[in-house]
Amino acid sequence: MRILVLGGDGYLGWPTAMHFSARGNEVMVVDNYLRRNLARETRSEALVRNPNLHERASIFNAVTGKKIEVRIADCSNASELDELFLEFHPETVIHYAEQPSAPYSMIGYREAQRTLNNNLNATFNVIWSVIRYVPECHVIKLGTMGEYGTPNIDIEEGWIDIKHNGRSDRFLFPRQAGSLYHTTKVLDTDLLWFYVRLYGIRVTDLMQGPVYGLETAETGADSQLMPNFHYDDIFGTVLNRFLVQAVAGIPLTIYGKGGQVRGYLNLQDTLQCVELACRQPASKGELRILNQFTEQFSVYELAERVREAGNDIGLKVSLQHIANPRKEKEEHYYNAKHAGLIEMGLKPHLLTGDVIERMLRRVMEYRSMIDKEKVLPRVRWG
Amino acid sequence: MRILVLGGDGYLGWPTAMHFSARGNEVMVVDNYLRRNLARETRSEALVRNPNLHERASIFNAVTGKKIEVRIADCSNASELDELFLEFHPETVIHYAEQPSAPYSMIGYREAQRTLNNNLNATFNVIWSVIRYVPECHVIKLGTMGEYGTPNIDIEEGWIDIKHNGRSDRFLFPRQAGSLYHTTKVLDTDLLWFYVRLYGIRVTDLMQGPVYGLETAETGADSQLMPNFHYDDIFGTVLNRFLVQAVAGIPLTIYGKGGQVRGYLNLQDTLQCVELACRQPASKGELRILNQFTEQFSVYELAERVREAGNDIGLKVSLQHIANPRKEKEEHYYNAKHAGLIEMGLKPHLLTGDVIERMLRRVMEYRSMIDKEKVLPRVRWG
Repeated sequence: MRILVLGGDGYLGWPTAMHFSARGNEVMVVDNYLRRNLARETRSEALVRNPNLHERASIFNAVTGKKIEVRIADCSNASELDELFLEFHPETVIHYAEQPSAPYSMIGYREAQRTLNNNLNATFNVIWSVIRYVPECHVIKLGTMGEYGTPNIDIEEGWIDIKHNGRSDRFLFPRQAGSLYHTTKVLDTDLLWFYVRLYGIRVTDLMQGPVYGLETAETGADSQLMPNFHYDDIFGTVLNRFLVQAVAGIPLTIYGKGGQVRGYLNLQDTLQCVELACRQPASKGELRILNQFTEQFSVYELAERVREAGNDIGLKVSLQHIANPRKEKEEHYYNAKHAGLIEMGLKPHLLTGDVIERMLRRVMEYRSMIDKEKVLPRVRWG
Repeated sequence: MRILVLGGDGYLGWPTAMHFSARGNEVMVVDNYLRRNLARETRSEALVRNPNLHERASIFNAVTGKKIEVRIADCSNASELDELFLEFHPETVIHYAEQPSAPYSMIGYREAQRTLNNNLNATFNVIWSVIRYVPECHVIKLGTMGEYGTPNIDIEEGWIDIKHNGRSDRFLFPRQAGSLYHTTKVLDTDLLWFYVRLYGIRVTDLMQGPVYGLETAETGADSQLMPNFHYDDIFGTVLNRFLVQAVAGIPLTIYGKGGQVRGYLNLQDTLQCVELACRQPASKGELRILNQFTEQFSVYELAERVREAGNDIGLKVSLQHIANPRKEKEEHYYNAKHAGLIEMGLKPHLLTGDVIERMLRRVMEYRSMIDKEKVLPRVRWG
């Protein structure tokens, strides 16, 4: 299958590209290095300096014999994106090409404006490239569980039947996000749903939880194939940050009470989910929404698990509650459905002590490269 | 009160500016003539060539002695908008500065992209100018009833309590619009709601139905103060188009069966509603949503009323069903609440035979200027 991976230099994009290429698909990756540039601007670079996309593809080719096509282009620019669709004629497009940091989007006007325009225009252009050049192409879009926020009712997979005054109808599940970044994903879903209804395109919107992990089936062949591992407050996800804090011997910093519950998943499960969505595409005129995570934890529980695993291997791990820089509920109801991907065949990799230990040992290899000043919150909401 | 009217050259913007200026407020109007430019590009110019904003303000000043400040600026450009906020320090901002045509937004990529970026960035910039320079300022935003679409349940005023699996919460009423233009208004509301929660700004989002009419209390003083009267398929609203067809002696063209029900209102009631919202502002941290229309009609009923009124004054009016260029339901449930503005004091001007007759007579003055080629649909959905 011809698979176009937009945002192919990202934490998920690059492992996705390798995954599909290793399994015999024709893969083209596209990126404009926005994340690398923003990480450099905000002193948020990854733990390990990753090779650029051309270098990554060369290394991957050297160890596997497989070829990944690389294009440096800006998906928020329609003419650049159209050109790639016309050249490659993808059967599936996997769209990760968004500014991915919630804290970045909350720094101020400029960062919020950049996030809004990059993300909306990238999604808008993907829709139009598909409509015009490959109307049968399956769009797999990475949304986020953060679109739903923390409602006081069970979170369904994308849709809800509402009964009201004796009548009923089916609607997109109500969404109310906690950052501008997450709000752009709400807007993305609205745009996709409009154009699905209008043009009958096929779209899978994967509402993903925070991802953790440094390894996939493809990363073992060469240490330079490692995913981008951000551990700072801006581009790092919470578990990755805790791992680095544990290794660096600084307290795991819990925002507020740590009662914030979210659904998490292993990077390997992201790849499984995307593969499942790819093999079982949405129908024409369908916006299929799947909640993509495997387990729910509170931030405090995550920290506790990292502490236990760290102490088991001789690290001295402590926890510290700090003022919450975000506006979010620290105690709330949270029960999100996530049956769809399991029914499609997902076999979860759960967050066991062994898994945490393995990640900690991997981070320990890079202990000297940890910049401790990156891990404390530098961005406050509002 | 210092009132900033964004989109002050529009069908609603200019009458709004005159209304508030006539009543002793300090008014500044801002426009970049986007609508005029798009109308010229698409052969959709108004029935009467309206003076430009500076000319309008001069004429208004000559007949009333009142001064309306005019600024030609682009609200989708933050630095241009910021400058006006810093100069004028508005207490209320009335935000009409959006590309207002659903058919225009459906022509193709370029028009859709322009609509998306203009509308989202204008709203985004208004939010940020308020946050940074006048955090107490009341934002009155014109949304549209079209955000709700045509759900199979009663449409509430902006919010709905959802009970689900034994728990409940309050959410934005689900929205699912029928054009890209209307979808941008859905996205506007999402953005406003996010920043209301985050920064506690005060916002009223007026979900308005299609407006009709050529007169307000201020337009009588000089014929050049008339609102922009578009009657074409792109910038004209349905009733205005029917009036022109009746006067021109061509059939009133009903899209499909004409069972499309919407809530309509008189231009004079738009002014009343905006005035009421202005005098009774939203609280800090409140997104107040009001459904702004006075009566529900199907398109067929509207056409029938114009036929009757037209025949009464000697016009020969016929109806013609034509293929619907839009993707929309032609028969559907529709029951939209609209009690909020009535409770605040709105006294509706209803669509009586006399009102239609008066509008028809006004259009008859300009009969020779009607371009019959503009009234048939030129834009198809999908």
